[in-house]
Amino acid sequence: MNEPLQPVQALRLRADDREPHADRVIVETPVALLYNGESFAVMMATPESLEDFALGFALSEGVVGDASEFRLVDIVRHEGGIALHAAIPQARFDALAERRRGMEGRSGCGLCGVESLQAALRPVPHVASPVRVDVATIRAALDALAAQQPLNALSGGVHAAGFAHAGGLLVREDVGRHNALDKLVGAMSHAAIAPDAGFVVITSRASYEIVHKAATAGIGVVVAISAPTDLAIRTAEAAGVTLAAFARGDSLNLYSHPARIAAAG
Amino acid sequence: MNEPLQPVQALRLRADDREPHADRVIVETPVALLYNGESFAVMMATPESLEDFALGFALSEGVVGDASEFRLVDIVRHEGGIALHAAIPQARFDALAERRRGMEGRSGCGLCGVESLQAALRPVPHVASPVRVDVATIRAALDALAAQQPLNALSGGVHAAGFAHAGGLLVREDVGRHNALDKLVGAMSHAAIAPDAGFVVITSRASYEIVHKAATAGIGVVVAISAPTDLAIRTAEAAGVTLAAFARGDSLNLYSHPARIAAAG
Repeated sequence: MNEPLQPVQALRLRADDREPHADRVIVETPVALLYNGESFAVMMATPESLEDFALGFALSEGVVGDASEFRLVDIVRHEGGIALHAAIPQARFDALAERRRGMEGRSGCGLCGVESLQAALRPVPHVASPVRVDVATIRAALDALAAQQPLNALSGGVHAAGFAHAGGLLVREDVGRHNALDKLVGAMSHAAIAPDAGFVVITSRASYEIVHKAATAGIGVVVAISAPTDLAIRTAEAAGVTLAAFARGDSLNLYSHPARIAAAG
Repeated sequence: MNEPLQPVQALRLRADDREPHADRVIVETPVALLYNGESFAVMMATPESLEDFALGFALSEGVVGDASEFRLVDIVRHEGGIALHAAIPQARFDALAERRRGMEGRSGCGLCGVESLQAALRPVPHVASPVRVDVATIRAALDALAAQQPLNALSGGVHAAGFAHAGGLLVREDVGRHNALDKLVGAMSHAAIAPDAGFVVITSRASYEIVHKAATAGIGVVVAISAPTDLAIRTAEAAGVTLAAFARGDSLNLYSHPARIAAAG
């Protein structure tokens, strides 16, 4: 149940051919995040690096202020998914009660339209990271990311987020891009890698959620392989995050706070 | 505010060059779905084809049984997003109250782990669609889909879902793949195109949510360009949905109920 890949029997159709094809696909399972015994969210995620995911989600969503406030109590495998039980300070738990009433995405809250829209766009902290990066270093990190995706190499369709720092590139994978980033943030904390010691590279587009999570985790530079959204750019501007996207081949586009990126290596 | 694309000024870095680049990016905005005055969900979506989105979401999520139970009352633009107000029968509204307590994704519910995991995986209806498709028709639909993505052509990073039927290919786009499918389902209903009159092609991976939505809308064949997840395959098997994925170039893989797909055109 904790395997990130699942073997399946498929049929491959090619022209007039129709032959059995032994395939491996990525596992997507409900993962519930519980704090002090109460469920806060259920994410569809790949059941791998769950300790990183539990801590990283709490950090990137601002459930706790730092890792010292977070303790993973239990990982319980149920028939329908996995429950990650964590303990957090009572004051943090109380603060969740408000947020629980109206969250972005698949939430339901009994609020009116204005209230639920306001709840969807939470305030974003300002990141004053002193990190500076040159393009050659970004290029090298993207190449390293492409080579460090074992799940994606076997199944396709998996996202990866990496943190490039003096010690190399730390990578986590997941079927969901935001989960990959959460796992990465948790792995960084477990490895005592400071968020201002480098930058994030991610295989996906840059959405609002990716930028918001990175900013909340204190990360000052996000480099996405695919396109940004308008809200991701505005959020990055407001948060002081340097957002680069379309980072492919020998070029990339800078959408906010370009001063952290030097042109040549 | 209702524009799906937003002009932005970026910097393009290429080798030692660093030049201004006028770009257009896809708009991502909170869209609240309200039934009888109460917010049920807020999705991050592209504000285009909102009438289709409102109806399609209600159909693909089983909020209503058919379009006759759904009436779009108002589209209200707020500073923080857009609220889609719909009226549904009281019995349908009452049924939402249960679901509202625990939904997949970003939800919060005060439930225990088992309860919230059970709520994340809702029962899926069985689709008894008589539709039959041959590979050449799928190939043609994929080619048509590639040519009918005006938003993606201008901004990149946009998903599209299309429904191939005797009258051609109906396409909708959105920053979120599940929203693109919702818009498509709504557009099909508005155009009185029956869900068993053809098949869906989608530019994304095949996740649980895509298959669940398609099955709930009565669609019997889903063809995804990218990878499937294990849960998508199991959901398709249970729902009687034919799931094809990795539909690229001259081949595709069939993962469930292959009898609907004929080998040659």
